[in-house]
Amino acid sequence: MSLMEVEQRPASRVERKRMEARARILEAAEHLMRANGFEAVKIQEITDTADVGHGTFYTHFKTKMDVLVPILRTKAHRLTERLDDLTGDMKDPAEIVSVCVRHLLTAIANDPLWSWFLFKSDLPMEQIREATGESAKRDIQMGVDAGRFIAHDGATLEPFLLGALAGVIRDKFETGLDQQTIDHCAHLLLLILGVQNEEALTLSRNALPPLLPGEQVSL
Amino acid sequence: MSLMEVEQRPASRVERKRMEARARILEAAEHLMRANGFEAVKIQEITDTADVGHGTFYTHFKTKMDVLVPILRTKAHRLTERLDDLTGDMKDPAEIVSVCVRHLLTAIANDPLWSWFLFKSDLPMEQIREATGESAKRDIQMGVDAGRFIAHDGATLEPFLLGALAGVIRDKFETGLDQQTIDHCAHLLLLILGVQNEEALTLSRNALPPLLPGEQVSL
Repeated sequence: MSLMEVEQRPASRVERKRMEARARILEAAEHLMRANGFEAVKIQEITDTADVGHGTFYTHFKTKMDVLVPILRTKAHRLTERLDDLTGDMKDPAEIVSVCVRHLLTAIANDPLWSWFLFKSDLPMEQIREATGESAKRDIQMGVDAGRFIAHDGATLEPFLLGALAGVIRDKFETGLDQQTIDHCAHLLLLILGVQNEEALTLSRNALPPLLPGEQVSL
Repeated sequence: MSLMEVEQRPASRVERKRMEARARILEAAEHLMRANGFEAVKIQEITDTADVGHGTFYTHFKTKMDVLVPILRTKAHRLTERLDDLTGDMKDPAEIVSVCVRHLLTAIANDPLWSWFLFKSDLPMEQIREATGESAKRDIQMGVDAGRFIAHDGATLEPFLLGALAGVIRDKFETGLDQQTIDHCAHLLLLILGVQNEEALTLSRNALPPLLPGEQVSL
């Protein structure tokens, strides 16, 4: 069935069926990839497990790698929501930024699929930009407005920071992104934002408040 | 002629001939790529201009992209030497770092082949690491020893900075790496090293002393 035909039918039912198939593909792919690793999983296995035809896969995704994007996007969005909950009552923008970047890097470090994806992706910066989304910008802007952070031009700051995080994540892919490295990234980020070294060091090493238990949302 | 045969002959003369052919290939490739752009140049043109056989090309390089690596490496090494000359009498490590990073980014910005290579390369961080080489590490260590810079762990600092510069270079490839962005990168770098904001801003924006005329070294 071509996209044209789909578009000519009543959108609601056809579209619902399409999205159900897509959700089953994502669920099956994530399950299989987490169990067996990305490389080992064949598209045939994904479609078998999802109970959809081979062609259906390709109406949604061009490659196996494409399936990972929405899986990890969902994970990142969920993490962002939980970080918003966690930091909602915090007053110091520097503390919020430190908590968020450390939780993000910890989540990536603890997820082999995510680490691997950022290691292999041609666009790791774009993926991190997508994952941190608007909330990172918002948190930094809050610190600027409060006079806590330096008002950097985002046109340079953004690619500089995204490139820096992508650089560290990729460099540590083989050996593992450890706690010391994660804390150090938060330290460097706070220095860039204008926090004094002693304070930046303290804020990047203090106990990381745990995320509140997240609601299990299906894909 | 296989590599085995080459190795069985007296090394000096054969090796000299090989290196002469390699130098001619590099010279021809750089000339053609600068004149016509990387994409437009065919390997056949390079070997014709260099007056070597097609097979000779492949004993030295796997792809056209491989030819660019030593061309730009030579350019980077020459720049590093000129930066050493320029900063040899400077006393403040923060000034040295600011001058060096701004000259490096300016050189990349002014060389379409270099910018393009860093944009296209799978390993832009490695290429920048190679270009800045040991001198960046040495300059930073000098500042640490003098108590001017924060003593960061290089295991995180290095990929963080290389990733940051790669991020900015790639992000600005389409629009061009302008003076404001270059100065801002120096500013961010100085903040990371622990220089206070006002001073970092001044050091990243003051007049950049020009490079002394470089000796024209053939490849």
